[in-house]
Amino acid sequence: MPTYLPLLAPTDGAVCCGTVTGSVISVADAERTARVFKALGDPTRVRLLSLIAASDDGEACICDLTEPVGLSQPTVSHHMKQLVDAGLATREQRGRWAYYRVVTDALDAASQALRP
Amino acid sequence: MPTYLPLLAPTDGAVCCGTVTGSVISVADAERTARVFKALGDPTRVRLLSLIAASDDGEACICDLTEPVGLSQPTVSHHMKQLVDAGLATREQRGRWAYYRVVTDALDAASQALRP
Repeated sequence: MPTYLPLLAPTDGAVCCGTVTGSVISVADAERTARVFKALGDPTRVRLLSLIAASDDGEACICDLTEPVGLSQPTVSHHMKQLVDAGLATREQRGRWAYYRVVTDALDAASQALRP
Repeated sequence: MPTYLPLLAPTDGAVCCGTVTGSVISVADAERTARVFKALGDPTRVRLLSLIAASDDGEACICDLTEPVGLSQPTVSHHMKQLVDAGLATREQRGRWAYYRVVTDALDAASQALRP
């Protein structure tokens, strides 16, 4: 369930999914929200999400992500784990390689959290 | 000038303000974007922004921010400096106190950067 962050007090009624309209964000919601933004707060992870999202079928093999970001596979795996743990990407192991997809709903929830 | 991040390749034409439609984000843009999300990646800073945004006139004195987050004034000042440096808040010194406002355009740009 996405968490919406009323950073700016809504003026036009209730917002989807549990936001307490017009109130200051709770400590628990602030922690959940900050966790997502922390995962986004690194240029390599931003690039990785962008690369995956721009892939032809919206899916990228880790074997295709190392070269564009110029990092080793363990380092890319580490960054991807943080994105997966934050709910921003999914990981599927197929044979030798891990394949990643962006979780569009999570990005949209993060986007909504910043909207007036 | 806000930077828009094509995390998800746009499908409906150009996006405002310099996004290269449908392409993978550049290293420079990823760095600028990650800097903003890094500032948002802390629960205290999320709470501070929310508190300021929810203030009656959209402005909050640092003297009114310390108690709600339960931190000392130097610590709150430190967090606020990171938000100001990231362009997410403005600071105005009036007499003894600093007063802060949320930069709505910057939040909106960050929100846009995550939109499909």
